[in-house]
Amino acid sequence: MEKARIRQSMLAKPPGSLGMLEELSVQMAGITGRVKNEIRSKRLFVFAADNGVCAEGVTSAPQSVTAAQTAGLAKCRAGGAVIAKHFGCEVTVIDVGVAGEVDIDGVINKKIAYGTRNIAEGPAMTRQEAEAAMKVGFDAAFSSTEDIIGVGEMGIGNTTTSSAVLAALTGSDVAAVTGRGGGITDESYMRKIKVIERALAVNGPDPTDAVDVIAKVGGLDIAAMTGAFLGGAARRVPVVIDGFISVVAALCASRISPIAREYMIASHESFEVGYRIASRELSLCPMLKLGMRLGEGSGCPLAFEIVSASCAVMNGMATFAEADIDDAYLDEIRKGDKFTVRGDKT
Amino acid sequence: MEKARIRQSMLAKPPGSLGMLEELSVQMAGITGRVKNEIRSKRLFVFAADNGVCAEGVTSAPQSVTAAQTAGLAKCRAGGAVIAKHFGCEVTVIDVGVAGEVDIDGVINKKIAYGTRNIAEGPAMTRQEAEAAMKVGFDAAFSSTEDIIGVGEMGIGNTTTSSAVLAALTGSDVAAVTGRGGGITDESYMRKIKVIERALAVNGPDPTDAVDVIAKVGGLDIAAMTGAFLGGAARRVPVVIDGFISVVAALCASRISPIAREYMIASHESFEVGYRIASRELSLCPMLKLGMRLGEGSGCPLAFEIVSASCAVMNGMATFAEADIDDAYLDEIRKGDKFTVRGDKT
Repeated sequence: MEKARIRQSMLAKPPGSLGMLEELSVQMAGITGRVKNEIRSKRLFVFAADNGVCAEGVTSAPQSVTAAQTAGLAKCRAGGAVIAKHFGCEVTVIDVGVAGEVDIDGVINKKIAYGTRNIAEGPAMTRQEAEAAMKVGFDAAFSSTEDIIGVGEMGIGNTTTSSAVLAALTGSDVAAVTGRGGGITDESYMRKIKVIERALAVNGPDPTDAVDVIAKVGGLDIAAMTGAFLGGAARRVPVVIDGFISVVAALCASRISPIAREYMIASHESFEVGYRIASRELSLCPMLKLGMRLGEGSGCPLAFEIVSASCAVMNGMATFAEADIDDAYLDEIRKGDKFTVRGDKT
Repeated sequence: MEKARIRQSMLAKPPGSLGMLEELSVQMAGITGRVKNEIRSKRLFVFAADNGVCAEGVTSAPQSVTAAQTAGLAKCRAGGAVIAKHFGCEVTVIDVGVAGEVDIDGVINKKIAYGTRNIAEGPAMTRQEAEAAMKVGFDAAFSSTEDIIGVGEMGIGNTTTSSAVLAALTGSDVAAVTGRGGGITDESYMRKIKVIERALAVNGPDPTDAVDVIAKVGGLDIAAMTGAFLGGAARRVPVVIDGFISVVAALCASRISPIAREYMIASHESFEVGYRIASRELSLCPMLKLGMRLGEGSGCPLAFEIVSASCAVMNGMATFAEADIDDAYLDEIRKGDKFTVRGDKT
């Protein structure tokens, strides 16, 4: 990273003028151990699961949409997959807990359960189930071969579980970390807050133990995504965060293994209110501001392109010396005479 | 645009959940007259010119850097061109007023003057010169054949002229629209503000006449860029704004022809303080937040990719009906039974 920083300072531009593109290229150097990198291949992981808390009427869409959209992702017709495909990014869709059978080619069945239990009444899952889902995500990311990966999800009800996990981990007020997800009414929103408060009271998750928090008030998708962030870090590959659910899983991963944070890249600032709290907790700054709140990993492929551009800057830009902007040259010019740039006509 | 909005509302996602990607696809429909669009080709225009105001010591880099970097852009070694090339985007570099000869293949010589005069002492150029530079930019954009174009610049001293133009057009306090450009000391920054205040007092530009403002306190780069925004709109092609200088030129264009605004797309929020004032004046919201302040059109190629993704969403996403999320289906599921997603195994 130090060598990368030095090279950035030698490139022909005002210091720091490429902002996050410079920082990303330095982070890439830290991740790979090389100053010059290239993103030749990219993969988006989407983990799908259902959430028992839907029974509380906290969502705008019925639970069945999880399965339908999981199929849509595998068929490259749902938003996240359409964007990924557009950029030549592979998509792996993994069912870790959809509440029904998704019998479609392209959906990998790693189901731990047919959805979780209702967190408003008791724990979402056992610790063993949470760990099993985490292992699914870890293995997927760890066995990936691409230069960059992204972590997304599909799961109706998972902004509710994510807000619950975030409130538990950070001690934030539930209202401060709870948004309207897919778009719910004022009444449903008030209910959503109360449901999360009840889930926290009923389950008493241990804020110092992210696995306990995930098992009690999280979901199988969040568990698998947490594992994916850890697996990507273990493989020393950059792992891109999508939106709110993804950043909450990233926070869980960094609580379990703080070094995992160094492999994370935030893509877009989700419209969902809790996003900012989780990203601040991770000291991560998203690069895109698109008012998106779809999930499905939809922000990751966009971020892959920006990371890729940051590598191109590091690899392709001329240094001050190469650009004929060296002290001797500048001294010559400073005399104020007209000048001619010397260049090879081709 | 209405048809595009209707189609967006039919796509299988919570309404509005793709945020600006939805808005961009609707804007594209308005620009081309078609609901479905594709970005197959893209071009970045970079207009290079020098500014007499450099004599006041308001810049961090010597004036000679304009010519050196103009050459670097043509050779694809300077930042903006490196990023463009990475994304397969063509680059046209046009010298409208560099204070020396840039004798390099790939730099189109449309020089109006060898730099402008010092705005702190009198007008930067004559109205005729401003109009001639505008015509260079207009013709370049109007004769482009690509699906999207971007407008960037290279010109040491042009954050000073841009702040002067922005202050004149909006009546803003000079300090509120003036930043540190390439990175100047506190002393130079105070001088920069005073120089701009003097330029406005000495020249008394007419705030209702953007051409007068450009001629008196602007630059040949800003003039050409203003023309490019108008030429792109006249050709009915989306025109992407880069950073601070670019957004000020966009504002000039919209003052000359308000309809030009409908063809503009903001790429990134420049670190330069005046950017936000100019973009707010245009009611434009940038999609990228990268802390960049390089110029050279460096933000445009990144935005091209996002616009392209917005088109992919419109073209490739399944509708609710296609995604098997229709009322009958939902009613069936709402009964609460487990279900199986029907799909063709391939």
